[in-house]
Amino acid sequence: MAERAALEELVKLQGERVRGLKQQKASAELIEEEVAKLLKLKAQLGPDESKQKFVLKTPKGTRDYSPRQMAVREKVFDVIIHCFKRHGAEVIDTPVFELKETLTGKYGEDSKLIYDLKDQGGELLSLRYDLTVPFARYLAMNKLTNIKRYHIAKDFDIAGNFDPMIPDAECLKIMCEILSSLQIGDFLVKVNDRRILDGMFAICGVSDSKFRTICSSVDKLDKVSWEEVKNEMVGEKGLAPEVADRIGDYVQQHGGVSLVEQLLQDPKLSQNKQALEGLGDLKLLFEYLTLFGIDDKISFDLSLARGLDYYTGVIYEAVLLQTPAQAGEEPLGVGSVAAGGRYDGLVGMFDPKGRKVPCVGLSIGVERIFSIVEQRLEALEEKVRTTETQVLVASAQKKLLEERLKLVSELWDAGIKAELLYKKNPKLLNQLQYCEEAGIPLVAIIGEQELKDGVIKLRSVTSREEVDVRREDLVEEIKRRTGQPLCIC
Amino acid sequence: MAERAALEELVKLQGERVRGLKQQKASAELIEEEVAKLLKLKAQLGPDESKQKFVLKTPKGTRDYSPRQMAVREKVFDVIIHCFKRHGAEVIDTPVFELKETLTGKYGEDSKLIYDLKDQGGELLSLRYDLTVPFARYLAMNKLTNIKRYHIAKDFDIAGNFDPMIPDAECLKIMCEILSSLQIGDFLVKVNDRRILDGMFAICGVSDSKFRTICSSVDKLDKVSWEEVKNEMVGEKGLAPEVADRIGDYVQQHGGVSLVEQLLQDPKLSQNKQALEGLGDLKLLFEYLTLFGIDDKISFDLSLARGLDYYTGVIYEAVLLQTPAQAGEEPLGVGSVAAGGRYDGLVGMFDPKGRKVPCVGLSIGVERIFSIVEQRLEALEEKVRTTETQVLVASAQKKLLEERLKLVSELWDAGIKAELLYKKNPKLLNQLQYCEEAGIPLVAIIGEQELKDGVIKLRSVTSREEVDVRREDLVEEIKRRTGQPLCIC
Repeated sequence: MAERAALEELVKLQGERVRGLKQQKASAELIEEEVAKLLKLKAQLGPDESKQKFVLKTPKGTRDYSPRQMAVREKVFDVIIHCFKRHGAEVIDTPVFELKETLTGKYGEDSKLIYDLKDQGGELLSLRYDLTVPFARYLAMNKLTNIKRYHIAKDFDIAGNFDPMIPDAECLKIMCEILSSLQIGDFLVKVNDRRILDGMFAICGVSDSKFRTICSSVDKLDKVSWEEVKNEMVGEKGLAPEVADRIGDYVQQHGGVSLVEQLLQDPKLSQNKQALEGLGDLKLLFEYLTLFGIDDKISFDLSLARGLDYYTGVIYEAVLLQTPAQAGEEPLGVGSVAAGGRYDGLVGMFDPKGRKVPCVGLSIGVERIFSIVEQRLEALEEKVRTTETQVLVASAQKKLLEERLKLVSELWDAGIKAELLYKKNPKLLNQLQYCEEAGIPLVAIIGEQELKDGVIKLRSVTSREEVDVRREDLVEEIKRRTGQPLCIC
Repeated sequence: MAERAALEELVKLQGERVRGLKQQKASAELIEEEVAKLLKLKAQLGPDESKQKFVLKTPKGTRDYSPRQMAVREKVFDVIIHCFKRHGAEVIDTPVFELKETLTGKYGEDSKLIYDLKDQGGELLSLRYDLTVPFARYLAMNKLTNIKRYHIAKDFDIAGNFDPMIPDAECLKIMCEILSSLQIGDFLVKVNDRRILDGMFAICGVSDSKFRTICSSVDKLDKVSWEEVKNEMVGEKGLAPEVADRIGDYVQQHGGVSLVEQLLQDPKLSQNKQALEGLGDLKLLFEYLTLFGIDDKISFDLSLARGLDYYTGVIYEAVLLQTPAQAGEEPLGVGSVAAGGRYDGLVGMFDPKGRKVPCVGLSIGVERIFSIVEQRLEALEEKVRTTETQVLVASAQKKLLEERLKLVSELWDAGIKAELLYKKNPKLLNQLQYCEEAGIPLVAIIGEQELKDGVIKLRSVTSREEVDVRREDLVEEIKRRTGQPLCIC
């Protein structure tokens, strides 16, 4: 529901174009008259030949979502939104487009992937690349210094000046709650800190100007080997091999809070102010994560770098752990399913006076999660209901359409999810079959005798049991049987 | 939840671009190195002057949605989606873009408003203009002949070969249910039929090729006077004045089922085959609407034309009725808030063999409804809660952060919506004030004594009453007090 369709925005954009178009109207209408005439002539010539050439497809890189796929999406979104609300978040939304300059200079090497639009009446627009930069723009524009919000069911952020690591720990708690609830298998959350990375780069001998680009190289360690990353650093980015090796010694370490303690004793790293701050904060973070009961899910991993330029402190990324494939089960794709971090400088980049608003947030990789859940359901050959209909209003004899319409309308008005077949005289067997296929649990059957007796025959589709229910009790009985709460809650 | 952010699609589109960009990588990285060096030099020169020139805004024609506005949207979407589900609809989704040719030739005069994109690697794309044409494309592509679905919480359609007027009546029932539930004031649904309009045009002397364009003119009658419409027909569209006058005699009539009966006796109209079919169907429709108990909301209105080309049968449009403005209340904008109709030919335009799938549907004008609800809430100065937090975990003394973190974590894990202030030692007064502002009904207060006694002090924010609750009973007590169902339902 957090959704505002791109369409609506575009309709508005289109509205702006109408004024200009009005001027072209007179000539356009003449053309249309001509077109109408030609179309009529064409119709007289027989069927449209051009239809054969038309390719029936969606644009490259896009897809449709079937009811089954949407049912999966809805369940995933339900879990995510419930969790965000459980943590007291408000919801905001921002346009699909931003001014090009809003996005410029925020993403580092990822900037190449930003998608630009045609000039719109003097405005250069780009499609948003994530929800974090639009959120920061929103905060600066509305002069907000304090908010906890989510954004189209996948991004959660806490903005404001708070005591260290409390909001950061909550973000990690939220990630763990969501991934546990989704039941997509065992997972691990890698944690690191940009200040530790920068300190490490400094003591290894990387020049300041290369921090971000070396950070991008390190970020690839979850996909390619250390050798390849080293080659990129030395060959493409001009790092001295011994500098790369020193980095290699660090970034191949991971562990729990004990690794934090160990690095706090590291003779070189502990001399670097930034690294020391980062390690101190991580130590505090682990204390809070223990109180939240999720410390066993967290791994301090020095190879975690996160590509985007805007992170300034703690960063994290959740990965699914590969489980040995069950017999007959396809091995599932494994990778990052959620990520985030602290970005204390981004809002200040938008504020005219550079005022900073510290922020920490997370983003759920919903597309990847959908595929995993879908694949899993397919492997289990599980049936997914795509409607929530509780009862089908059916008739045993002919000429009862009016009675069916009256009853189904009564049920709708009482809040019952009900259907009927759109046929005047459907066979009872067809009506029962429809319930089997659609997974509808109950049938309310009207017959001549039932009408005389003031009752409805209520049939359970699975057990095939039938009982007569007095018409005035039908709504309560359906609610009772389908577990719909009788109270309003 | 029916939402798939445009972003995700675009990220995929962007993915396709990455391959091309990889080739430019080597040179791009050299440039970035240079940029990094220059940025460093710039940083040494002092604060960024260019920031002053940056305009902080959203693109023309777009807007952000604040938590308050989103809370309103969510309530409206809840009503709509609940109704669609009550009527047994599945949900689908389609991309924000379509191939340009998918949209071509479907909208008539509205086609001018379609928004085209830059060439995307040989594909001409347009932004979807409504959800009906993409739905028809989806049906043809998947060879579906039978479905009842909704689409991003505002479009509902029934596709399939059914007995006449039963699905059409259900669409009108759905429109009435939604508009009643939204409580946005009294409304009326205007109904007409394209076949009646075409028959009327024929007997008035309009040539076939001008049906659609004259239909567009008639469609403006809800906004401008008959005189202006006549001027357009005669002056711009070349209709003879006496033909226009004959049309005028018809389109100024409206009424109930009695007007249908009257026109069935009309000596000229009843001789036209199309008009006769349309009138016969409307008579049947009114019977079903009476059974659904909504006939008093429906007006047969011969001036209703609906601009889009694809309608073939019944058409309808819901309008709010202006209520006399209350003292101090701004008069609310009045106009169409929902509309739809039957389009039996659209799917066939996509099917390679021209196979037809009859469809009927409706669309809710969600943007207009949001504005109305927002305006009304503002006029009433009503407070809108933007979070659903049930309880704030607070402490009465210092040094209890760890205890607060433990308790709030317990509550989250039990499904309670809970918050805490992100401060080590917040004052109790500040914690209570936060609850007042955010509308949080309960406070769970931890103190030294409570910890010793194994209890939590539960305080009601409005009544200020406090009771000690045993820690193991706290979750149940909060659920009981906030009306969250104890059963799982």
